[in-house]
Formats: sequence, structure tokens, C-alpha cells
Amino acid sequence: MKIAHTDSEYERELTRLRNELLSMAGRVEKMIRESVQALVERDDALARATIDSDREVDLQEVEIDKLCLRILARRQPVASDLRVLMTAIRMVTDLERMGDLAVNVCERALELNREPPLKQYIDIPRMAELAQGMVRETLDAFVAGDAEAAQRVIARDEEVDALYAQVFRELLTFMMEDTGTVFRATRLQSIAKYLERLGDHATNLGEMVVFLVKGEDIRHSS
Amino acid sequence: MKIAHTDSEYERELTRLRNELLSMAGRVEKMIRESVQALVERDDALARATIDSDREVDLQEVEIDKLCLRILARRQPVASDLRVLMTAIRMVTDLERMGDLAVNVCERALELNREPPLKQYIDIPRMAELAQGMVRETLDAFVAGDAEAAQRVIARDEEVDALYAQVFRELLTFMMEDTGTVFRATRLQSIAKYLERLGDHATNLGEMVVFLVKGEDIRHSS
Repeated sequence: MKIAHTDSEYERELTRLRNELLSMAGRVEKMIRESVQALVERDDALARATIDSDREVDLQEVEIDKLCLRILARRQPVASDLRVLMTAIRMVTDLERMGDLAVNVCERALELNREPPLKQYIDIPRMAELAQGMVRETLDAFVAGDAEAAQRVIARDEEVDALYAQVFRELLTFMMEDTGTVFRATRLQSIAKYLERLGDHATNLGEMVVFLVKGEDIRHSS
Repeated sequence: MKIAHTDSEYERELTRLRNELLSMAGRVEKMIRESVQALVERDDALARATIDSDREVDLQEVEIDKLCLRILARRQPVASDLRVLMTAIRMVTDLERMGDLAVNVCERALELNREPPLKQYIDIPRMAELAQGMVRETLDAFVAGDAEAAQRVIARDEEVDALYAQVFRELLTFMMEDTGTVFRATRLQSIAKYLERLGDHATNLGEMVVFLVKGEDIRHSS
């Protein structure tokens, strides 16, 4: 996201937009990490704190949208600045939804914490780690204007999908062998699904960075 | 979406944008209806045709985004036209995702069609009908510029959520009583979840119509 304008107030607005986006993404990244930490460590307080922090993400979505609209109305940006604004408008939608998904993970974790542990979690924390890394690296790519880095992040979504399929099958086996596991296993399946969706949203962000840098729409191209 | 411009080419562009959006929404509405029809009637061919039609929705997303970007770049719209464009950019994202969810319903329906029927579907078709109606009425509200109608649609999402909770619990009972139902019941839980998400996306569309008409951001206000 290169900025080179003679009008310094305009420049400040675009810088503010970038900082707001990065701050929102950082918050969402933290929510993903802590939601799964709350699950693994059976930490209700952390789950609740993470749920509460989504309020800030929601407020940031509204703020960033307002900022974009104001810049569009007052500055009538063209070409690359216009792409920055289109990207920002789309990115906040995905980031806000990612916050919701982290909240969903916490809600299921709170339910699971009231039950005895079903199994040791290995693949689920791995999925969360991958999704969280995808968000961070996409945002790094956004700051650096690096389309190749963004595309590398997108490629890693396959790993998340493969882990999801594995977790889903494993939990199905649990349920088929012992009906006493059904409640917990379906909760864990939901959590795995939320993490899989987080990977998809990170992929969307990556595609937006490619669009931003190269002006090329790579969605639905595979 | 009122249009009153002296520049007739600009007017034609905005009319084209509106028609493209309505056509995309109509296609998504049809996909929702037919995905659940494919489930209820155990119709594999219909499920596959619906999956295929998502390609068109994806292409429309890219086309509408391009059109918005072109209008923004060439026309430098202000105030209400700018809101129309912001709304269009956001709407296509939700509509595209809704197409994906209808595809997911079809994928689970294809899996279920290979198994003996588990139960008669009552609540799931009702959920689909509600979600589909929400899309249609939101788009009517969009065309009419009717914020009150949009808000009535938003209120109906509670009904979809209540049905989801009911279906989820019922299927949990099935699994706890008979492990032989686990595979099918988890598929049906997924379908119910997709329909619940479709209701959420329809709610998003409704909030966008309110924003468009009143210039007021009602997200996260409850």
C-alpha cells in the first residue's frame, strides 16, 4: 500500500485507514489464538474475555467503513487509491466475520469445559495456528505490497482443509463407537468447521492483496 | 435505489448495476430453493445442476465488482450514488457466499441420497423457505428503497435461528439413541447450519438496504 501524495491531509487519511485495518486484523488474530487456548486449557475466563473483545472488532468495522466512505466522497480517488479503498471495504467484512467465528469457537469451548475432556487436542490447535499465521502473513503482504507472499498464504489453505477432513472423520468414529461422545464430538466438529472457515476468510484476504497489488481479480480462477 | 441524473450514460451504468445485482440475487434465491428440493426429493441431477449454476454467480460477482470500480473511477459519485456503490460492493460478497452455501447443501444432499432416508424433513424445508423469502423481500425493499420493509425482513432471522436450534437438538437425540444415524444426522446438522447462515447473510443484505436508504449503519446496534 504505497502512499505518495502531495496533499498531506489526504495522505494522513490513507495512513490512518491502513493503521486501522492493521489494528483490526491484529485483534482478530489474537482472538483466534486465544479462542483455541481457551479450549485447550479449559479456561472459561479467557473464553469470555475473547467473546467480549469482539465488540471492539465490530466497532472498528463500522469506523473503517465510515472512513472509506468519507475518503471516497471527499477525495474522489482514482486508480490505485481506489483499489486500496475497495480492498479496505472488502477486508473489514472478512475480518469482522473472522471475529464472529472466534466467538463461536469460544462458545463451543465454554460448553465443552462443562464436560469431561474427550481427547487430547492436536489437530485443532494446529488448524488454529495455521489460520492465525495466514492472517498475519497476509497482512504483512498487504503492508509490503507483496502479491507473491499473498499467493503463498492462499496455497496453505489446503493444509487447513485437509486437517478439517481428518478431524471430522475422527470425531465421526468416536460417535459411532460410543454414543456418550456425541454431544462433545459434535461441538468439536463445529469448532473444526469454524477454523476451516477462518482459513477460507484468510484466503479471501490474500486474494484481495493480490487484487490490490496487481489489479487482478483471482477469485474463482481455479 | 432512485436514479435521477442528467448524464444519461451514467444513468444507464447505474441501471445496469441494479439489474445485475437483481439478476445475481434471483439466481441465488433459485439455488437455495433447488438445493433443498434436491434434498427432499432425493434428486441427484438437480443437486448437480445447482452446484454447476454457482459458476454463474461467481462470474457475476467479478463482473459487478468491475462495474462498481469503473463507475467509481470515471464518475466520482457523491452522497447517495456513493452509498449505492458501497452497498453493491458489499451485497455481492454476501450473495456470492450464499451461492456457496447452497452448493454446500447440495453436496450434503448428494451424500444423504446414497443412504436410506433418516426422517421426514419438515423444519429444514421451512428454514430454506424462510431464508429464500428473506432474500427476495430484501431485494424488493432494495428496489423500492423501503427501509421499513428491510427491517421487517431482518426481524425474521430469529425464526430461522429458532428452527436451527430445534433441528440441531432433534438430530443430537437421534445420534444418542442410535449410532447408526450418526453419519446422516451430522450431514443434516450441517445443512441446518448452512440454512441458518443463509438467514444471517439475508440479514446482512437487509442492513445494507437500511444503510442505503437512510444512510444509517445499523450493524452491531443491538
